[in-house]
Amino acid sequence: MAKFDYIENPHRRYNPLTGEWILVSPHRSKRPWQGQVEKVVEEKRPEYDSQCYLCPTNERVGGEKNPNYEDVYSFQNDFSALLQDTPEGEFSDGDLFKAESESGICKVICFSPNHSLTVPEMKVENIRKVVDLWSKEYKELGDREDIGYVQIFENKGSIMGCSNPHPHGQIWASKLVPLETSKESENQLAYFEKHGRTMLSDYLKSELEKKERILVENNSFVALVPFWAVWPFETMIISKREVSNLLELTDEEKTDLADVYKKLTTMYDNLFEVSFAYSAGLHQAPTDGEEHPEWHLHMHFYPPLLRSASVKKFMVGYEMLGTPQRDITAEGAAKRLRELSKIHYKLR
Amino acid sequence: MAKFDYIENPHRRYNPLTGEWILVSPHRSKRPWQGQVEKVVEEKRPEYDSQCYLCPTNERVGGEKNPNYEDVYSFQNDFSALLQDTPEGEFSDGDLFKAESESGICKVICFSPNHSLTVPEMKVENIRKVVDLWSKEYKELGDREDIGYVQIFENKGSIMGCSNPHPHGQIWASKLVPLETSKESENQLAYFEKHGRTMLSDYLKSELEKKERILVENNSFVALVPFWAVWPFETMIISKREVSNLLELTDEEKTDLADVYKKLTTMYDNLFEVSFAYSAGLHQAPTDGEEHPEWHLHMHFYPPLLRSASVKKFMVGYEMLGTPQRDITAEGAAKRLRELSKIHYKLR
Ligand SMILES: O=P(O)(O)O[C@H]1O[C@H](CO)[C@@H](O)[C@H](O)[C@H]1O
Ligand SMILES: O=P(O)(O)O[C@H]1O[C@H](CO)[C@@H](O)[C@H](O)[C@H]1O
Repeated sequence: MAKFDYIENPHRRYNPLTGEWILVSPHRSKRPWQGQVEKVVEEKRPEYDSQCYLCPTNERVGGEKNPNYEDVYSFQNDFSALLQDTPEGEFSDGDLFKAESESGICKVICFSPNHSLTVPEMKVENIRKVVDLWSKEYKELGDREDIGYVQIFENKGSIMGCSNPHPHGQIWASKLVPLETSKESENQLAYFEKHGRTMLSDYLKSELEKKERILVENNSFVALVPFWAVWPFETMIISKREVSNLLELTDEEKTDLADVYKKLTTMYDNLFEVSFAYSAGLHQAPTDGEEHPEWHLHMHFYPPLLRSASVKKFMVGYEMLGTPQRDITAEGAAKRLRELSKIHYKLR
Repeated sequence: MAKFDYIENPHRRYNPLTGEWILVSPHRSKRPWQGQVEKVVEEKRPEYDSQCYLCPTNERVGGEKNPNYEDVYSFQNDFSALLQDTPEGEFSDGDLFKAESESGICKVICFSPNHSLTVPEMKVENIRKVVDLWSKEYKELGDREDIGYVQIFENKGSIMGCSNPHPHGQIWASKLVPLETSKESENQLAYFEKHGRTMLSDYLKSELEKKERILVENNSFVALVPFWAVWPFETMIISKREVSNLLELTDEEKTDLADVYKKLTTMYDNLFEVSFAYSAGLHQAPTDGEEHPEWHLHMHFYPPLLRSASVKKFMVGYEMLGTPQRDITAEGAAKRLRELSKIHYKLR
């Protein structure tokens, strides 16, 4: 009988960060696609758009005016999902009906005054300013008594629900630790207690030896396709040093984070020669006033495109009711990304 | 100071089936939408389409021909994500790299020979035939030694990745219990051991007293918006009797399941007067050869539309990296659905 081979045979893989399994069907990428195709809108955008509520000097929906900012700029989200003045409290009725108040602060971060740019098209020195603003916000929000977690993220592309192409990200800072990071907290803590090292430092060491899922690295960071990736071209950026949050990064490391962010998103854009949609975000230590030596700073990228600029992976049906599933292997995805030109397709 | 009120204030709710929390931002539904809008394609379809690989007598991609079936018809998926002949085995390297072989059988179930229909437009007696085929497949697949779980589901609508509008569903039957149902197994078992009743029988009793999230009921089933719903118009169908799978249903109960499936999907279509997209699926006892008195048969519906036929909820960014989030309350969604006409909009 043939031997099990995870490059060829359907299998499950374990995600040690969340403690959950995913399903991989390597053979299934051959299936023809007759379903929905996405619109590919690649219109050239102006550097300034008078209709854009994120461009400098424009008025936002609340009536406030953006300053004439020169690099980065953050402000409180005009449609915050979390509010500061929410009364504390709980509701419960037996074991089956439980609700509890949640409060927080939502902010928007403009990455550049230039409406036409995206991260891979920005200069490293300007992306570095985004990293600095993330750090500042993480510190200011995290220092507050009423904020236990600062979630920094970027939704890019209209197929990812992003309603404005101006380069920007968001922060949702909450009193309580969100679901995904609480899973990661639990599993990282168990690992740290067992081994005395962070899970991701051991993981990264192994990956750097194996090489097959590595995409790009610099002195301080590595971008790779995690062994347990579920989205077709899902990736992670992991810091080489055991740091639990942005504030522990040195000056050089902050620039290196900007550098790897640009290199990874350049690969993404080059894959289908289209501005590549994704949700990305930093995962770092909670700001609950405790030490978190178990936490290892990293950034996740969840991009939906699968076969081309217009065919995405749908996480529906079996994925919602059963197990998240992918059609290509992490190794195959890494190989494709790694072999792409390092120069952005628009500059060639 | 104001009192916490879960109808007005941002809060978290607990899902006792999965053991996970979700975030609710009731005030946020007022936010204007400038993002992606979905194409609404409501073309009238013919009863028979010679290009459709699910219509009777047509050839499928593998070269096989569909019989001239008269009501329902099932066959093995030509692009199965799970295969029967996968060699057993495991791969591991420390705690951080773990993979294991997964095998199974994927089938497609045609709900009707009539290409133009959808569930809410079918007669109850014909939907009943779908329920009978589900039962037959659950028994046949579940009786196999190599199948531990039979996941029956329906993806409806192109925005849900459904590539063919012919009324149909799927079955992915696997050796191992999938992620979502293993969470539900664990939590239902803990509840059953503590209370001696199934979690959902107690839950349903409470909901029938409270009434505010109930949509429709008949003698054997109730459709409701669960307290912990995350998709805007997420619902569940729950059996009134403690039954762990389809095979325990009486003849009358099977017809009642067909009836409530039609009534619920009619409400859905009437909400925005459009054929309403969703992923739906049955959750029932694993077929691992054990008794599962803790398992309570139910069906989940996860529909993406939020504001109109063309604006959906994006589960991106914070939802992927933090906590699933909704903008309207379960109670508000239930009220809107409940107040709709019971007659399908196309028949009015
Ligand atoms: O098998 P289909 O209908 O082609 O595919 C659809 O349903 C599957 C099961 O939910 C998903 O894995 C696919 O992403 C989706 O496009
Ligand atoms: O705040 P935005 O960009 O309008 O909204 C977008 O990101 C949010 C946070 O990930 C999501 O909850 C919304 O569904 C999405 O459309």
